[in-house]
Amino acid sequence: MMKTIDLNCDMGESFGAYTLGYDDLAMPFVTSINVACGFHASDPDHMAKTIQLAKINGVAVGAHPGFPDLVGFGRRSMAMTPEEVKHAVMYQIGALDAFCRAAGLKMQHVKAHGAMYNMAEKDLSFGLAIADAIQAVNPELYMLCLANSQMVTAAKQKGLPYVAEAFADRAYTDEGTLVSRKIAGSVIHDVKEVVARVVRMVKEGTVISLSGREIPIAAQTICVHGDTPGAVDMVKAIRTALDEEGIQLQPFGK
Amino acid sequence: MMKTIDLNCDMGESFGAYTLGYDDLAMPFVTSINVACGFHASDPDHMAKTIQLAKINGVAVGAHPGFPDLVGFGRRSMAMTPEEVKHAVMYQIGALDAFCRAAGLKMQHVKAHGAMYNMAEKDLSFGLAIADAIQAVNPELYMLCLANSQMVTAAKQKGLPYVAEAFADRAYTDEGTLVSRKIAGSVIHDVKEVVARVVRMVKEGTVISLSGREIPIAAQTICVHGDTPGAVDMVKAIRTALDEEGIQLQPFGK
Amino acid sequence: MMKTIDLNCDMGESFGAYTLGYDDLAMPFVTSINVACGFHASDPDHMAKTIQLAKINGVAVGAHPGFPDLVGFGRRSMAMTPEEVKHAVMYQIGALDAFCRAAGLKMQHVKAHGAMYNMAEKDLSFGLAIADAIQAVNPELYMLCLANSQMVTAAKQKGLPYVAEAFADRAYTDEGTLVSRKIAGSVIHDVKEVVARVVRMVKEGTVISLSGREIPIAAQTICVHGDTPGAVDMVKAIRTALDEEGIQLQPFGK
Amino acid sequence: MMKTIDLNCDMGESFGAYTLGYDDLAMPFVTSINVACGFHASDPDHMAKTIQLAKINGVAVGAHPGFPDLVGFGRRSMAMTPEEVKHAVMYQIGALDAFCRAAGLKMQHVKAHGAMYNMAEKDLSFGLAIADAIQAVNPELYMLCLANSQMVTAAKQKGLPYVAEAFADRAYTDEGTLVSRKIAGSVIHDVKEVVARVVRMVKEGTVISLSGREIPIAAQTICVHGDTPGAVDMVKAIRTALDEEGIQLQPFGK
Repeated sequence: MMKTIDLNCDMGESFGAYTLGYDDLAMPFVTSINVACGFHASDPDHMAKTIQLAKINGVAVGAHPGFPDLVGFGRRSMAMTPEEVKHAVMYQIGALDAFCRAAGLKMQHVKAHGAMYNMAEKDLSFGLAIADAIQAVNPELYMLCLANSQMVTAAKQKGLPYVAEAFADRAYTDEGTLVSRKIAGSVIHDVKEVVARVVRMVKEGTVISLSGREIPIAAQTICVHGDTPGAVDMVKAIRTALDEEGIQLQPFGK
Repeated sequence: MMKTIDLNCDMGESFGAYTLGYDDLAMPFVTSINVACGFHASDPDHMAKTIQLAKINGVAVGAHPGFPDLVGFGRRSMAMTPEEVKHAVMYQIGALDAFCRAAGLKMQHVKAHGAMYNMAEKDLSFGLAIADAIQAVNPELYMLCLANSQMVTAAKQKGLPYVAEAFADRAYTDEGTLVSRKIAGSVIHDVKEVVARVVRMVKEGTVISLSGREIPIAAQTICVHGDTPGAVDMVKAIRTALDEEGIQLQPFGK
Repeated sequence: MMKTIDLNCDMGESFGAYTLGYDDLAMPFVTSINVACGFHASDPDHMAKTIQLAKINGVAVGAHPGFPDLVGFGRRSMAMTPEEVKHAVMYQIGALDAFCRAAGLKMQHVKAHGAMYNMAEKDLSFGLAIADAIQAVNPELYMLCLANSQMVTAAKQKGLPYVAEAFADRAYTDEGTLVSRKIAGSVIHDVKEVVARVVRMVKEGTVISLSGREIPIAAQTICVHGDTPGAVDMVKAIRTALDEEGIQLQPFGK
Repeated sequence: MMKTIDLNCDMGESFGAYTLGYDDLAMPFVTSINVACGFHASDPDHMAKTIQLAKINGVAVGAHPGFPDLVGFGRRSMAMTPEEVKHAVMYQIGALDAFCRAAGLKMQHVKAHGAMYNMAEKDLSFGLAIADAIQAVNPELYMLCLANSQMVTAAKQKGLPYVAEAFADRAYTDEGTLVSRKIAGSVIHDVKEVVARVVRMVKEGTVISLSGREIPIAAQTICVHGDTPGAVDMVKAIRTALDEEGIQLQPFGK
């Protein structure tokens, strides 16, 4: 059987007069995108534009809900209750879905953004809040979860379809969790090394941890970036390598 | 055949720590509500709460999109392009729809709020932008239009289902349009008079204009208010009178 | 020598179309007010109005900076850095000062609001950030600090003028700190009891802790509320009792 | 006597994670900057950073207040009342002044941004609202006005210090007003032509109108741009030419 994998990438993070990211350059190389919904980034006009771009490129679309903090780009944790997080996620899924429906696209998934993602992968109550939100709006949507995290537990508890993601450029602990960004070596910048790691993740289902051990990692999607020219080059290299390895790239929801 | 009519009322206009309106008191007397969607008023938590209240009261739900101007409550016109208005309306319809879906309710209609309503009833390009937005997201939604306005023209041009509304407490010109709020007598405060006018609108399809002439007015829904205790008393009086006249109250979408 | 005390109260928390608090009713009974600056509440129009009301009532004005979270009314902690908090406080002090200058009033103090206050009274780095902000903009402004808290330490370290506040209606621990709101009995609702506590605080410099012990509390200002009719009644009762005891009420900055 | 002129440029328009403009590259070539104040662009952190950059470069600082419309970058007119505009301008002047005071800088001027500027140059009531705001906060601040516009009339009526500005790259009518951006030729892109026009404006006090006539233009400051690499090149060329002509560049408030 042919190996398949999905590459997911945050997109649609421009806002008003402000441009962020190289969506048009990166989109041809990924298979799923996480689209900002106006709370941490984007606005109705950029959402419309992003969904059009997704349609043209044939990528699958997910909502990328974040905290209501434009100045902080949703990267600052906020002491919202799980109930408030649930409602904020529902709102953002619905808002993006309007543009999907208008474009004749079916939304594939939901991936929490920034600090909300970080809270949900550690604290089950926030993972459950996100799962609740998805289930309330559309129980067919996949919850995109960090592999080996509380988000997976939350999705399982709710009986929600989910996929686990691994990060192309992040170092892993021996337990299969992400090495904190505060630790040296947590982010891998060398394109060849990143490409090799992704190929290993997909073909072997393993990753070499920061301490040098081979660790199992089960991921249905790999998170890549498109916010700098260098990031776009990395995405292209990853895509090319996967194609050469005969691995089929397709949205996980297919 | 029994006469039927709908009473529509703006609801869900509270925001964060701020309470506005007497939703729980007024809702039992109306049949359709226009729910604020977070741009001119409300937030995800209040939207969830309002939809729950709508479900309990069995009223039909519509989106009430406005300009992105919380400080101005959407009452200040903004020089947005028709395209920007279209996207802002799509976004807000989608956001509210998430809460409707979660509650198992089917959204009935869309009614523009405040300055957006005022622009759309005079300027066809904005009426068309709103009609476009509705059609793009869900062409089964009714567009709630001011009777005898450009909004009606827009809905017709797009082939969108629509209803016309009359205002219970507003004076009309001989042409069947609203008397400007700047003119003395434009708003009628006397409960008995308002009740009598509503009964006439429903039974006879007419209204007495400011100059004293009997004018035809074809409305499938009457707009009432619930934002003050006095407004709630007026809604009750209108409802009681209509019930006594044997007029059936029901959402227009039924 | 005559005893003197200041009563401080949050004011100017209305926003756009939304009214909050009974500023005009409570203001005659207090001597200093903490004015919202548009981040957690208020807007330029309400700030102008509040400063006019302060001038008419002859109360001293302080800035009441909060987190940039209108939906959460500044009550949800946000993971802002001390540097970000410093800049947010500077911005808000400056904004309010424009209205003070226009009215010919000299700003007296700065009191952090809500979650920012709570962070600053426990975490010295946030207390220092606020003290830094004040010092940078105007080192003559008093920092209004919770008695016996890290805010006092911060003000002292920076050599900033400060006053300590006690809460009229809050229970205290044996250590002179506030009993958490999560604990039963943390907020005292009985007007007579609150009045008696305030008189004791001012005359004796003590408070009876939740466990029944007499605890020293050195406060130059007492925090009261004006956000409900009941709160206004309590403020009046406190003011009347203090007047009857021959205690002089005046802004602490005098 | 030596000719002197000021070059003013909008700066500090970045917001949160979003970068806009080439402030550090353009600032060495201008003498006055108009700093965004958080309504149409910027935030407290970027304001602090911009004021630091201004201090390092020795440029004079002005507030650049705009409409409260981040998504629209303050470029969409809003139906605010003159009173609301006045308060919004006061708020923004005060907010920026906090950062100036902290840096030991004295604010020089106020220049309205975008749609607010456009409204004020045509409609005297908005020009007066801005002049009122400046006078209320600090009557020593210059009002930066479009030459030959209602803004000049407003500043004169209020007895406020003001300067008139001409645009380096905009075409002028025979009446000395700006040619609408909708008309072909309204913006001049050729660097040499722009440079020659600026030199003529400063040395001769004239400009060649779109129809080819020589028109008098009295400007104490020339508006230039720094938002694109091409704009920065143009600023450099203008500065170099003025230096070579022996014209002294200095802030108009000196």
